[in-house]
Amino acid sequence: MKARVTVTLKSGVLDPQGKAILHALAALGFGGVEDVRQGKLIELELDQSDPDKARAEVEAMCEKLLANTVIENYRVEIGG
Amino acid sequence: MKARVTVTLKSGVLDPQGKAILHALAALGFGGVEDVRQGKLIELELDQSDPDKARAEVEAMCEKLLANTVIENYRVEIGG
Repeated sequence: MKARVTVTLKSGVLDPQGKAILHALAALGFGGVEDVRQGKLIELELDQSDPDKARAEVEAMCEKLLANTVIENYRVEIGG
Repeated sequence: MKARVTVTLKSGVLDPQGKAILHALAALGFGGVEDVRQGKLIELELDQSDPDKARAEVEAMCEKLLANTVIENYRVEIGG
């Protein structure tokens, strides 16, 4: 079973990487971009076949390793 | 209008960051993970209000800056 985790910075947390992308886009002529935020995408292949158990397991992984919950939000999608 | 770009490594391209996550999860006791791939998530706020134009613009950004199309795939979602 596949799981997809997206980790994004909480609003209010500075995102220098996003700002760098914003400025690079402006330098390339893409002036219509108002803001950019960069996050992480983590795709997992699990041997768990129960979707509810898989979600619980992936949420535990997020809390322990994949996300820094002080400054980041995470979202788990299970499927496939 | 918001756009969300996910950039993932093409299959066959080595992903040392994903492997590091896999081993760290195993060390934490999450043994049921078979594979991990790490990608990027880029959220853009555009001043374009036409969804088709916004998509074309973001795809041009991906080709020029956001993704390395030799080794990466990208997917654009428009909305919000």
